[in-house]
Amino acid sequence: MNITGKSLINGVWQVDEDVQSFQAFIPAQNKYADTLFYEASEQLVKASAFVAKQAFKKYRTTSEQQRAALLNAIADQILALGDMLIDVTMQETGLPEQRLQGERMRTVNQLRFFANDLINTPPQVKVEAAQPDRQPLPKPATKLAQIPVGPVAVFGASNFPYAFSVLGGDTASALAAGCSVIVKGHPAHPATSELMAQAMLKAIKSTGMPLGVFSLIQASHPQTSHALVQQSEVKAVGFTGSFNVAQALQQSIFKRAEAIPLYGELGSVNPQVILPRLMENDGQTLATNFVNSLMMGQGQFCTSPGVWLIPKGSDQFLAKVEQVLAEQASAPLLTPGILASYQKATQTISELNGISLVAKNAPLEPFHPQAQVLATTAKHFVEEPILQEEVFGPFALVIEYHDIDELVWLVEQFSGQLTASIHGVVSEIDANHELTEQLSYKVGRLIFNQMPTGVEVCETMNHGGPFPSSTDVRSTSVGIQAKQRFLRPICYQS
Amino acid sequence: MNITGKSLINGVWQVDEDVQSFQAFIPAQNKYADTLFYEASEQLVKASAFVAKQAFKKYRTTSEQQRAALLNAIADQILALGDMLIDVTMQETGLPEQRLQGERMRTVNQLRFFANDLINTPPQVKVEAAQPDRQPLPKPATKLAQIPVGPVAVFGASNFPYAFSVLGGDTASALAAGCSVIVKGHPAHPATSELMAQAMLKAIKSTGMPLGVFSLIQASHPQTSHALVQQSEVKAVGFTGSFNVAQALQQSIFKRAEAIPLYGELGSVNPQVILPRLMENDGQTLATNFVNSLMMGQGQFCTSPGVWLIPKGSDQFLAKVEQVLAEQASAPLLTPGILASYQKATQTISELNGISLVAKNAPLEPFHPQAQVLATTAKHFVEEPILQEEVFGPFALVIEYHDIDELVWLVEQFSGQLTASIHGVVSEIDANHELTEQLSYKVGRLIFNQMPTGVEVCETMNHGGPFPSSTDVRSTSVGIQAKQRFLRPICYQS
Repeated sequence: MNITGKSLINGVWQVDEDVQSFQAFIPAQNKYADTLFYEASEQLVKASAFVAKQAFKKYRTTSEQQRAALLNAIADQILALGDMLIDVTMQETGLPEQRLQGERMRTVNQLRFFANDLINTPPQVKVEAAQPDRQPLPKPATKLAQIPVGPVAVFGASNFPYAFSVLGGDTASALAAGCSVIVKGHPAHPATSELMAQAMLKAIKSTGMPLGVFSLIQASHPQTSHALVQQSEVKAVGFTGSFNVAQALQQSIFKRAEAIPLYGELGSVNPQVILPRLMENDGQTLATNFVNSLMMGQGQFCTSPGVWLIPKGSDQFLAKVEQVLAEQASAPLLTPGILASYQKATQTISELNGISLVAKNAPLEPFHPQAQVLATTAKHFVEEPILQEEVFGPFALVIEYHDIDELVWLVEQFSGQLTASIHGVVSEIDANHELTEQLSYKVGRLIFNQMPTGVEVCETMNHGGPFPSSTDVRSTSVGIQAKQRFLRPICYQS
Repeated sequence: MNITGKSLINGVWQVDEDVQSFQAFIPAQNKYADTLFYEASEQLVKASAFVAKQAFKKYRTTSEQQRAALLNAIADQILALGDMLIDVTMQETGLPEQRLQGERMRTVNQLRFFANDLINTPPQVKVEAAQPDRQPLPKPATKLAQIPVGPVAVFGASNFPYAFSVLGGDTASALAAGCSVIVKGHPAHPATSELMAQAMLKAIKSTGMPLGVFSLIQASHPQTSHALVQQSEVKAVGFTGSFNVAQALQQSIFKRAEAIPLYGELGSVNPQVILPRLMENDGQTLATNFVNSLMMGQGQFCTSPGVWLIPKGSDQFLAKVEQVLAEQASAPLLTPGILASYQKATQTISELNGISLVAKNAPLEPFHPQAQVLATTAKHFVEEPILQEEVFGPFALVIEYHDIDELVWLVEQFSGQLTASIHGVVSEIDANHELTEQLSYKVGRLIFNQMPTGVEVCETMNHGGPFPSSTDVRSTSVGIQAKQRFLRPICYQS
């Protein structure tokens, strides 16, 4: 394995002189790695935007078949990295091997999924014939087609080092649309990013695509991200990460003369509603499923079930949650920053009035997070905005509701969410149509009797939601529709 | 005719005490009308947003048939206003009777067009079945549907008092999508706006829709517009008007916690390219067509042909332009503000270096604009940003190009445009594929051998374009796709 620590621009690994460097963190060992990565200068960011525009002019003229070949070549090259990729990412993220193998397969399949769609689905073109004899005026012939928007900036996420990072869904969908891509790699896994960029470069060369169609910017300084979104050549931004970072990038975008779309997939508390009959019938199973979903990736999923609405008096459910959570092994979080935020948030919440402890586990190391399920009342939840915010990590809040009226009222108080689930027997779900209707206007994906973790890459997926869960409720960052973010209509007349 | 001068909120004509008033201008007489219209207070704006949200909760549950019935009832009620509507609008806009009759028919047809689409086109729903046995994980059943985004604010345009105003395309498409609407009427035609709101109120009552589904805000003060877009209940904005007003509204939207989409359809110079062979064959006809298109509505169309790229040495074309334009009768512009801007812009441009006069007409009144066609070189055009900006009114700029290479280079310098036309014989259009490809990335609608004025309301229309011609290149404000601006995806899982 040869890691240069540099940024990839126009097919060349580049670094400016006298720049600062940064290192990856090894969560399992709670220390920094040795390999140095070099902060991309503003000059390099500018260069990446310039070549992305030049490459776009060529890449936009490629056929669906040529783009599909590129996407399939990328998938092949990721697999060709072999176990070395998994080893490097395990070290950089602390995520277990099996999870990373699964995520790699999902990422490879996602690239092939977009490739197959390019080959099998004709481009969206609608035609209307002229009506030269129409009165009072003739009707012209018109054809509505789609063309790519231009270079796209993509920000890698820390929590999905493959599926939402350098060659993840944003990059795959932008390339499928015909856009060139500049990725700002996440500094939590820079060696993973460089390996992925190596794979990408091989795929570009093997399919004869312009070198500037992809660049990787390595940086840990926020100003590099801001410089990237402010380049006039950049026409759209794909982002998966925190609300605060997205809001900061949004402010930089607002300073542009041209306001470009920021597709920010942020996070949410993903409310889980359990209706009374199912709780009565199946509380024990629900408790196990809830804890398992919460503990996936130590709660570092944007669809982690963060708020549970349960009928008052569900004591057996809560007892089971306590038992199952106590048995869950702790593991490190992705970065020291995430750990510090988690510890601060859980500390702050546990000290609030009206909060009680339901369940916790025992950290195996002092730098592991303590998984926690706390409980509060509907009134406290609504009156305390901090309780409505996502706590990134293995944390959930239980709210006991008195009756369906209180539940409907509570749902109305929620801000926008990526997902919500309703758990109930069919008859009680049907009987509470108002609840379902209300909840659908709060979410991007409404789930019945399943947990929210796990986002299927398919035609009919929607991964997005009303603000603040995403910055653009009209779009999805997962599934075939993700490509639509990087296309725009054009009418050809006559 | 009973004009109250008030705003319509929740089915009631309302005015706060001690507010200022404004009057419409009568362009043909160059004086203000007598009828007083009352500035809506911030309180009324807030009230309109509140009732729009309440009404949305009911309106969003209506069926396609119910929404179609509302749209058809609106069309009926507009026609029921009869000649009185035309008379009032003629007075407020100075636009001729035939033009307004045509625009009324277009507006009525546009409402019926969206109604028919609701009845005839099934909602966009895609379903994928579950695969419970899939390895390594089962695939859930998912369904992708669309739901309305919420209350929409619409800004009426001065230049299309029906088709892009109170009950124009933005309102029709938002209502079709299932959104409630708050219209800020344009102060240039407030009586027209009130008549349209009267028609709307009758339609709402006859179809049993919630009263808050539509409000009309009457105001001339900019702060009222800013207050409207800042209401948290408002989830999208439809706007047709000037770049400067759109940019100001955009800044107010940026101050919101939630950045909502501004669909601003602004304007552009709509470059008209004439290729050499066609110029040689048909220069005289082109000259007549160009002047006629330019003089439509005295150039007050966002698709007015403002820049003409012609082969060097097209003297007969230019001579014919001079002759035809001199024969064109002058007419007043829509407002004193538009006249002042027009006079200032044409004065500034005519005093620049490298500008020469091609053609003009003779104003019949001192308050009429003088139609003008000026000429400049490619070099001057590119170096002088003011020449690339739209001059709203009967003004066009001719640029003579030396050869196709210079033409391609010139096209690359253009900013985003709503439209462009290429006029040429088939063989020369085919031979200049690079020009066509390049131009398509600069425009929302690329036209061959037709003038840009006239926007067909149909399935395959696109009326929008890259910045700065619109604020959202992904959207159209005309045609069935306009509805998509006010819908968003939702996935139902399992």
